[in-house]
Amino acid sequence: MTGFVSFVGAGPGDPELLTLKAVDRLGRADAVLFDDLSSGPILGHARDGATLVGVGKRAGRPSPKQAEVSRVLVEHAQAGQHVVRLKSGDSGIYGRLEEELDALKSAGIKYEIIPGVPSAIAAAAAAGIPLTRKHAARRVQFITGHDVVGALPEDLNLAALSDPNAVTVVFMGKGTFPQLAELLMANGLPDDTPALLAEDVSGPDQKITQGTVGELARQLAASTGQKPALILYGALAES
Amino acid sequence: MTGFVSFVGAGPGDPELLTLKAVDRLGRADAVLFDDLSSGPILGHARDGATLVGVGKRAGRPSPKQAEVSRVLVEHAQAGQHVVRLKSGDSGIYGRLEEELDALKSAGIKYEIIPGVPSAIAAAAAAGIPLTRKHAARRVQFITGHDVVGALPEDLNLAALSDPNAVTVVFMGKGTFPQLAELLMANGLPDDTPALLAEDVSGPDQKITQGTVGELARQLAASTGQKPALILYGALAES
Repeated sequence: MTGFVSFVGAGPGDPELLTLKAVDRLGRADAVLFDDLSSGPILGHARDGATLVGVGKRAGRPSPKQAEVSRVLVEHAQAGQHVVRLKSGDSGIYGRLEEELDALKSAGIKYEIIPGVPSAIAAAAAAGIPLTRKHAARRVQFITGHDVVGALPEDLNLAALSDPNAVTVVFMGKGTFPQLAELLMANGLPDDTPALLAEDVSGPDQKITQGTVGELARQLAASTGQKPALILYGALAES
Repeated sequence: MTGFVSFVGAGPGDPELLTLKAVDRLGRADAVLFDDLSSGPILGHARDGATLVGVGKRAGRPSPKQAEVSRVLVEHAQAGQHVVRLKSGDSGIYGRLEEELDALKSAGIKYEIIPGVPSAIAAAAAAGIPLTRKHAARRVQFITGHDVVGALPEDLNLAALSDPNAVTVVFMGKGTFPQLAELLMANGLPDDTPALLAEDVSGPDQKITQGTVGELARQLAASTGQKPALILYGALAES
């Protein structure tokens, strides 16, 4: 008897930002495969006796390769288990969901996707600003500052990203933001465009730093902090 | 004694996609100001005796003006109430949040913003696809097809929107999509770019229709349906 996989978006980190459906699925799962960001109190919703399997990065240890994560996922489901694959934020936003879906399809395993609160959405809420504004910001975009080898992606659409009338959220972009900001400013984005750094969103060390694109680029060029963070810039409302 | 306002994202419609924090705030509010899309079973989480105030569109009746909604919100808070301002999806995504925040700031009323699951995120989950893909779709963007008078906004960034390597989600764009698609295709987006219409996402009449940008534009030009819908197009994964 083949099992079933529920991909569950765990939200940005605050256990209270889990959905009711996420709590339900955690309470019924035989096994929960989790990444570090979605661990801790959130796993307290798993039932007694459920198998908890960490498949994300851990300090000081190499993270499992994506193919290995997919293999473990398929293995648990093929053993007939109801598996919750917990991912931080929403599974479909920079969560490598496609690779895991493909592995399940190849193995003929059924699944569902439970959406979660993306970290970008929680960052804006924490900063007290809307991501869209009636006239000033009708477009919002998410990009990653980090390609598969950790560098700034080469296929950036600079016309899209240098638009001062949009709000842009950069995921995993702390390390590459100085380089990105240089490209944006060379493409016409003003140095004093509002920007915001959101660290450990919804977590115990949440910190929101406001400034401009130029200031944030200089600050991050001099920083060595490793905390997860999002960068917002563009037509940001005043908070 | 001045009250307090909790802006609460209600998620796309399925009551099970409320967050635990949303349920908590609903259970403690003296008054709940809701729009139509976020009503129904979700309001069942309000405590007995809470005042429920509909401020959204209702079939056959004109919807209150935004200034009137802000006035009612301030009035309830100034009466010393803990008010939940419930908005469908996430409050910060096309939710007119900025105007209501400005009204509260002017009146010196404190507030918090509880993020919710945006309808775009739920639409992708319902369609079984990720919004981002490792190599193929590193950028995702949300736009509105509907300016304040219901027309296609004039300040579209066509370089951003005609990018076949991004995933674009159009909110409130059913009526204007034929016109948008024409602009996109004139700007180089291939007619056969994958597209998807997601109607009544997470609701009882949820319907996902897959096709291409050209097909969807022709279908919507001939359609008179009034159901709320999102349109996704671009580097969509196969579902």
